[in-house]
Amino acid sequence: MLIDGLQYANWSEKIFRQMREGGVDAVHVTICYHEMFRETVANIEQWNRWFEAYPHLICHAKTGDDVRAAQKAGQTAILFGFQNCSPIEDDISLVEICHTLGARFMQLTYNNQSLLATGAYEAEDSGLTRFGKQVVKEMNRVGLVVDMSHSAERSTLEAIAFSERPIAITHANPHNWHPGLRNKSDTVLKALAESGGMLGFSLYPHHLKNGTQCTLTSFCEMIGRTVDLMGIDHIGIGSDLCQDQPDSVVEWMRVGRWSKEIDYGEGSKDNAGFPPQPPWFQDNRDFSNIAMGLADMGFSEEETAKVMGGNWLRFFDENFGPA
Amino acid sequence: MLIDGLQYANWSEKIFRQMREGGVDAVHVTICYHEMFRETVANIEQWNRWFEAYPHLICHAKTGDDVRAAQKAGQTAILFGFQNCSPIEDDISLVEICHTLGARFMQLTYNNQSLLATGAYEAEDSGLTRFGKQVVKEMNRVGLVVDMSHSAERSTLEAIAFSERPIAITHANPHNWHPGLRNKSDTVLKALAESGGMLGFSLYPHHLKNGTQCTLTSFCEMIGRTVDLMGIDHIGIGSDLCQDQPDSVVEWMRVGRWSKEIDYGEGSKDNAGFPPQPPWFQDNRDFSNIAMGLADMGFSEEETAKVMGGNWLRFFDENFGPA
Repeated sequence: MLIDGLQYANWSEKIFRQMREGGVDAVHVTICYHEMFRETVANIEQWNRWFEAYPHLICHAKTGDDVRAAQKAGQTAILFGFQNCSPIEDDISLVEICHTLGARFMQLTYNNQSLLATGAYEAEDSGLTRFGKQVVKEMNRVGLVVDMSHSAERSTLEAIAFSERPIAITHANPHNWHPGLRNKSDTVLKALAESGGMLGFSLYPHHLKNGTQCTLTSFCEMIGRTVDLMGIDHIGIGSDLCQDQPDSVVEWMRVGRWSKEIDYGEGSKDNAGFPPQPPWFQDNRDFSNIAMGLADMGFSEEETAKVMGGNWLRFFDENFGPA
Repeated sequence: MLIDGLQYANWSEKIFRQMREGGVDAVHVTICYHEMFRETVANIEQWNRWFEAYPHLICHAKTGDDVRAAQKAGQTAILFGFQNCSPIEDDISLVEICHTLGARFMQLTYNNQSLLATGAYEAEDSGLTRFGKQVVKEMNRVGLVVDMSHSAERSTLEAIAFSERPIAITHANPHNWHPGLRNKSDTVLKALAESGGMLGFSLYPHHLKNGTQCTLTSFCEMIGRTVDLMGIDHIGIGSDLCQDQPDSVVEWMRVGRWSKEIDYGEGSKDNAGFPPQPPWFQDNRDFSNIAMGLADMGFSEEETAKVMGGNWLRFFDENFGPA
């Protein structure tokens, strides 16, 4: 079972075919950043058209069993997630509506302060808000997973503690390996694992030691050290692959409609666009390189299988739906 | 199996309890008239709150099997429907979105010309529009039933002919029994039955011979004559019960936001509000009166069971979901 815990590509038949070539059984895809509810629905409509157009390549999945069925049918299962809470606007009842429409992950924040919690780029982190606590409770009730990939430290720890069900950090790496602004501290990673949560390792160059030049060996060594910290059952891949996107899209991700000035996020004025991927992870056909890298590091077949998708599947089974 | 093919009440715990007292296994409830998409979602949110508050009385159903499960669990199954096409706005992809959110019936028109077809109150009936044909095709694809209860004759006949799956007239009576403006001609009823569609008999006084004074015997005789016309397999109840609604609601139904002048619809200036129900059908506890009336008319147990819910259940099984 090969599962990727996050991608946001410029989707096309080409990419769906690469998923099949790479044997990717399921992908959690980002369907919105700053889109409000109606705009998010329009994005789901676009996915419905892809499901109708490419039934031999992809299908919509809402449960772990849907992923198993897709694997059997030779399709890649697509799971929806939001990288911000914009789709629920200021309406707690939209949590269930979005879950019904297929959302299975929702970040409480995307870099900035949101109505729910504080993002990783704010100077002050005030933790979960009043609305945030109500929304986490509602997400727990319906089975929409809290994702804190872009959230600040205190907010993340509070979400882990407050949530009655495990949460996820779908795409980030340990801060102790590469001090990217939103890579996660050992404190967060330990609390995450102890609460039954999941970390997806990112392959987005800004999250990698030496960026695009990061070696497969360094990446796999990092995974090995994270096993020492978190155990083998709470980690997976969350590649953060942003394939074929024009640079206008990274601007939308970073600035949305919240600023008239450019914010470079994890980039910089000289490196404003999407950074190139490392040569050993260019697209969906390259997951086998990671599996081989882990084997070379001494991971057993069973351990490698857990990291490459087994853990995500168990997490899906336990957390997508009413408790 | 006792199924009501349409109600639009001022929902409350009291009414849900009456459904249980009356042994009502499923009700197709109207969740909007002139509401656009986002407003329709807000109405679904309200239903989700009722499902959460009264799980011992009601549950949301999307299939015939959901209705069977509800019956087993002692709940009344609630199926969503729209009395107009406002929720899909001008966006064909909202058909699938609304289906995912639970919609199982959608009227192409509510009295007026819509983007899809012509309503029963227009002077000219131009039939299915270009958008209308595309939407019927899409409704056929996903399993959202076309309902022509409030549509004009030509549009209704064209919908029956154009739709590749059976359609429904969830709440209306034969025009030959009571010439209400939107009661249906023999031509429509025959075409409906021949195509495998369903008629739900209305108990809304404006659709009844002698209105509120209509007798149970007259109502059951009318059903008997309709069996002669349509056969026993294509009829059911669609009470159109509008219990506990203030008269402001009938104004909303009739005028929505399309006119600044009052339109009295099936009523009149002197009889503008909701008319009182006949004494033998006041609320959800009175379906047994109809069943007894049919037995008195000589309907066999099997025939009565078909009219009181069996036919609807078969129709649900065949038409709620991809073909």
